[in-house]
Amino acid sequence: MRPPTHPPIDAPDVTARLASQLAFVIEIDRLKGVLRQTSLCDGSRRENSAEHSWHLAVMAAVLAEHAGADVDVSHVIRMLLVHDLVEIDAGDTFAYDAGANVGREARERLAAERVFGLLPANQEVAFRALWEEFETQATAAARFAAALDRLQPLLNNHRANGGSWREHAITRAQVLARMRPIERALPALWPAVMEIVEANCACGHIRSDD
Amino acid sequence: MRPPTHPPIDAPDVTARLASQLAFVIEIDRLKGVLRQTSLCDGSRRENSAEHSWHLAVMAAVLAEHAGADVDVSHVIRMLLVHDLVEIDAGDTFAYDAGANVGREARERLAAERVFGLLPANQEVAFRALWEEFETQATAAARFAAALDRLQPLLNNHRANGGSWREHAITRAQVLARMRPIERALPALWPAVMEIVEANCACGHIRSDD
Repeated sequence: MRPPTHPPIDAPDVTARLASQLAFVIEIDRLKGVLRQTSLCDGSRRENSAEHSWHLAVMAAVLAEHAGADVDVSHVIRMLLVHDLVEIDAGDTFAYDAGANVGREARERLAAERVFGLLPANQEVAFRALWEEFETQATAAARFAAALDRLQPLLNNHRANGGSWREHAITRAQVLARMRPIERALPALWPAVMEIVEANCACGHIRSDD
Repeated sequence: MRPPTHPPIDAPDVTARLASQLAFVIEIDRLKGVLRQTSLCDGSRRENSAEHSWHLAVMAAVLAEHAGADVDVSHVIRMLLVHDLVEIDAGDTFAYDAGANVGREARERLAAERVFGLLPANQEVAFRALWEEFETQATAAARFAAALDRLQPLLNNHRANGGSWREHAITRAQVLARMRPIERALPALWPAVMEIVEANCACGHIRSDD
């Protein structure tokens, strides 16, 4: 998928490809119905994985200069746009719920097969590779993407008076462990992260460790 | 914003830039609360402009091969991610409501000043240029983006048993006028569009013109 490919298309093949592409476009509408634990900044409701993915993609564009020089931000944006699509089948798994995370990988792998499998074969490979790259965390692009995926709920919880931290009595140690990828992939953001964490500990929105 | 710029940042400047960037990131969360007339494919609720923007961005990646060879799809994706941000202040204006569209441009221009104005100056210029490009429709990239912005509600209304067409008694002529940009910018999709329009006329989800 990088750079955008515009392969010539045989006329007889257009209809079948297009049907697959439209089936995928319609199917992914369901991501708007997958609720995450994080709420909107105004606390009015939980956010869904589609709008969350949009938020992360814009964040990648806004915070691009803080990524390593070797990070292709347009590639990161594509990765973020599709990184949660498996949740259409597998659901969102709350990061702080160890029990719910058992079996998550297998569920998501099955989901990837079905959801990306709706696309024409060459696009199935390209989109799935983006998802695999995010999951594997072996590239600087994937680590930048994952750091944004940690930062966004931090900002939302902070604005929503503690949000899911408060609701689930999450501790400082748990939050810091969850945020740690930001320190590596977005070091310029780390002081701001620590400031937000300490402020939320001070007012009791994040539980102290002792 | 194209290609991604990674300017070196002076240490003293980082904090101020970052504060502006985070203020923008937090502010745009409000787009998740802007409701459109279009519903989700399952008809369960109206969609919001944030998840709509995500849907369009993924569609740009999926349908890239049907755009002209001169279209930079990564640029289109960035355009689509920010094209509705002015609705945070200006609200979503229903395409088929001529009255509500009076004054829309002025409202959105004020909104662009405030919302993009939260960013550091060089990013304000870059993001605002993306929005202006979409509004002006003078480039092939903007026309491809706009075609997707017409196609997505068509698909959703089709899946949601007529959705906002039925709710507002929209006529075939109104729908065709609204879809016309697809014929120019996404000609490979036009037969599918016509098929969907005629099917929805046949079952009464779109009103006949006479």
